[in-house]
Amino acid sequence: MELNEALAKLAELEKKLYAYQAADSALYLDGTTVAPKDTAQGRGVALGVLAGERHRLFSAPETGTLLDLLWEKREELDQLRRREVEELRRSYAQLTRIPADEYMEYAMLTNEAGDVWHRAKEQDDFQLFRPLLEKLVAFNIKFAGYYDPSKAPYDALLNEYERGVDMEYLDKFFATLRERIVPLIHAVGEKEQPDGSFLERHCPLEAQRKFSDYLMEVLGLDRAHCTIGETEHPYTLEFNNKDVRITTHYDEGNLASSMYSVIHEGGHAKYELGICDEVQYTSLAGGVSMGVHESQSRFYENLIGRSLPFIQAIFPKMRELFPEQLGDVTAEQFYRAVNKAQPSLIRTEADELTYCLHVMVRYEIEKRLIGGTLKVKDVPETWNRLYKEYLGVDVPDDRRGCLQDSHWSGGAFGYFPSYALGSAYGAQMLKNMEGDMDVWGPVSRGDLSAVSEWLREKVHKFGGLLEPADVVKNACGVFDPTVFADYLERKYSALYGL
Amino acid sequence: MELNEALAKLAELEKKLYAYQAADSALYLDGTTVAPKDTAQGRGVALGVLAGERHRLFSAPETGTLLDLLWEKREELDQLRRREVEELRRSYAQLTRIPADEYMEYAMLTNEAGDVWHRAKEQDDFQLFRPLLEKLVAFNIKFAGYYDPSKAPYDALLNEYERGVDMEYLDKFFATLRERIVPLIHAVGEKEQPDGSFLERHCPLEAQRKFSDYLMEVLGLDRAHCTIGETEHPYTLEFNNKDVRITTHYDEGNLASSMYSVIHEGGHAKYELGICDEVQYTSLAGGVSMGVHESQSRFYENLIGRSLPFIQAIFPKMRELFPEQLGDVTAEQFYRAVNKAQPSLIRTEADELTYCLHVMVRYEIEKRLIGGTLKVKDVPETWNRLYKEYLGVDVPDDRRGCLQDSHWSGGAFGYFPSYALGSAYGAQMLKNMEGDMDVWGPVSRGDLSAVSEWLREKVHKFGGLLEPADVVKNACGVFDPTVFADYLERKYSALYGL
Repeated sequence: MELNEALAKLAELEKKLYAYQAADSALYLDGTTVAPKDTAQGRGVALGVLAGERHRLFSAPETGTLLDLLWEKREELDQLRRREVEELRRSYAQLTRIPADEYMEYAMLTNEAGDVWHRAKEQDDFQLFRPLLEKLVAFNIKFAGYYDPSKAPYDALLNEYERGVDMEYLDKFFATLRERIVPLIHAVGEKEQPDGSFLERHCPLEAQRKFSDYLMEVLGLDRAHCTIGETEHPYTLEFNNKDVRITTHYDEGNLASSMYSVIHEGGHAKYELGICDEVQYTSLAGGVSMGVHESQSRFYENLIGRSLPFIQAIFPKMRELFPEQLGDVTAEQFYRAVNKAQPSLIRTEADELTYCLHVMVRYEIEKRLIGGTLKVKDVPETWNRLYKEYLGVDVPDDRRGCLQDSHWSGGAFGYFPSYALGSAYGAQMLKNMEGDMDVWGPVSRGDLSAVSEWLREKVHKFGGLLEPADVVKNACGVFDPTVFADYLERKYSALYGL
Repeated sequence: MELNEALAKLAELEKKLYAYQAADSALYLDGTTVAPKDTAQGRGVALGVLAGERHRLFSAPETGTLLDLLWEKREELDQLRRREVEELRRSYAQLTRIPADEYMEYAMLTNEAGDVWHRAKEQDDFQLFRPLLEKLVAFNIKFAGYYDPSKAPYDALLNEYERGVDMEYLDKFFATLRERIVPLIHAVGEKEQPDGSFLERHCPLEAQRKFSDYLMEVLGLDRAHCTIGETEHPYTLEFNNKDVRITTHYDEGNLASSMYSVIHEGGHAKYELGICDEVQYTSLAGGVSMGVHESQSRFYENLIGRSLPFIQAIFPKMRELFPEQLGDVTAEQFYRAVNKAQPSLIRTEADELTYCLHVMVRYEIEKRLIGGTLKVKDVPETWNRLYKEYLGVDVPDDRRGCLQDSHWSGGAFGYFPSYALGSAYGAQMLKNMEGDMDVWGPVSRGDLSAVSEWLREKVHKFGGLLEPADVVKNACGVFDPTVFADYLERKYSALYGL
């Protein structure tokens, strides 16, 4: 095959993979937003067939031959094509290493596990979920061997979510954080908590919807390319860099819930919308890793969104939209309320300071489960013990304990650390950004354009063109978790007068 | 290949065709409802690729071999499978008779033509659209030869939309209608028109949305399987018999517009939701023909929705929802206003009486275009002449003339007659229904369940299991357009005191 012909075939393959992804996304989006309630079955049939077709296409021997041929001629390819081929070869190798029957069996297992987990959580019944979790763990240990037999199984899984990251790296990372954060939490615990009761005042849906529109405007999200929908669990979904959707969930008794969810998902959307045109419709379109993606969402949500200058900038508009709810509240009071640090049970509701400890519990449990030193039956007990040890809280039931997250039911082991890494990357990005320019002057005027531009240049535009580690290096320099610890220390010392 | 293996392959093929259709529908639904404004390009890429994949799958030689093999063994198949194979073979033959390069070229042409038609209509510039229409006509003449070289080209096209229908059939049908309807229109024209000015009173969106919900309830549309969305042009979209969506367009200055659009699309939805489970995920799922589909939508819209008993039944609720707009209006006045018959320019806004004449103009033009006796350049002149002749109105511009409909830009020649046929089928169904049971007693109490049940049993449940002509025969008996003419005569004589 001539190089030109091979490149044409590559482009065709990439377009097809994009189209299958787009179909999957459209069906998912519909299913979680406007679809009638009792329509999951037919959608499931379509999604299953499309996943099968995509798998058949991508794992076909001709795909392997094409990618090998292009890899042999990589010296003749430009950087973009070379990188495309490299990434596709990696995915191809991974996919074809899993025997087709195991792949199908696993797909059915995660499908069933999702349902069972839902019920188990609702009914607070770990035993219901246990046999499925056992199978999921066993599959993941086996798959880890397919991914990279030279690595310890959990390292192989971690590498799938954040390439280059392993237990050695994370052990050090979390040790640093724990060493610095735990004393901080103790110190905060001895101080008086700010009053945040006004956050629970009733805020009508319509005003909250207008507030979302305003927040998207402040974030600089172009509505011609990004809309907001409403779902039970908020998410960001990208079709391409011209078409991204975010969703939120409104709670009329909790203004801050949707507010920070919009800013968080808005951060993900900024990333996807900022990726360069050159990589669109290829395997390099889309954010480079979960950790880097979370760095962007949590950057906007916490480093910007929970900063005093930002809150001061948007507070006049907030008081206009919520005159009865916030008429007697100052920006500073609001700032203190949304930064209240307190050990709690639920990860997704945790504050910036205690959040990483929630992640650490999951990391420890995954490490032992996949490493074979913890049995699934002992997960609840270990979970509860670690929550007591790390956060000092008693877990009253598994619903608010080890059944709270959906990740494991979907087969995601090794994903959680990305959340903590993202937070730490973000803090270091902020430090570098502050070195490069005046961050807080414009933010205090509600102008986020310079922040956006910095992130676009340092992170967003590359998409998958660089390795995750190189994107991190590009924006953070040498990764140093003490920068994040310093940030937390500074912020919470000021907040609580430590 | 064993029969069992062949049947398994058939089921797999059918599921894949279903999945591609579902993907297409989800992307279309998204694109017309919630998608951000400037996102058509990426969706176009995905839709193009998926259409190509579907075409590749369906036109593959193995598909032909499989269908031939099953057809040889048709005596061993049950009725459902035999019918599936018959329908698939027909589609396969049709698809594979069109050379792949012409198929692709035509797909690109209709895509471009859609855009150009939009602009041409906006700018009232037929010359802009003319070269595309010329190509579309030429393609359709050529395709007609592929479909059935033994037929006149326009007959071959008509057969695609309503199998068994040809020019001979339609000439008689339309002649009967014209003979009866034209004198009626003249007679009505000499009478005083009812006052319908209250229909233009401002009706807020929110109340209209509630009214839609109420109408769906009256129609017996289960919201767990059917939702309503908002789009520029209303449509019905079916994923399967458990998942159907309708859309409407609200005009705050025209209450009846969305009202009758909801009832019309609701009729389409009733059909799709009433199809039996056995044919789901096969080529027999979905309404059997355009004519039969329109018979259902127009049955609900006109025969029921524009009847006095129905309007009397829902009027109390309407006055509750629109107290200021309808407080001084009676059900009878409303009935007269929404049945005002008056020759006009726009087909989609035409009343029940004059509607078929709009269709006849299009039928005559298509017949001559595809028959080669009318040149595209002469379409506007012919259009305007026929409107004057049939409806007695002067067409002021092509925007309100031959550029008003999208059908030709999408390559649909032979579709229009379905609208008129559907109206005529419906009238005959009503006559038979009245013979079988008390229709108007329950309808006057807002109870449409018996009507629904009758239609489900006589029309809906079969899906594509029967030929269109057999469905018509099943519900109408021997087709007789004078029944429709009688209906119109009775209705409008009473309304206008003829």
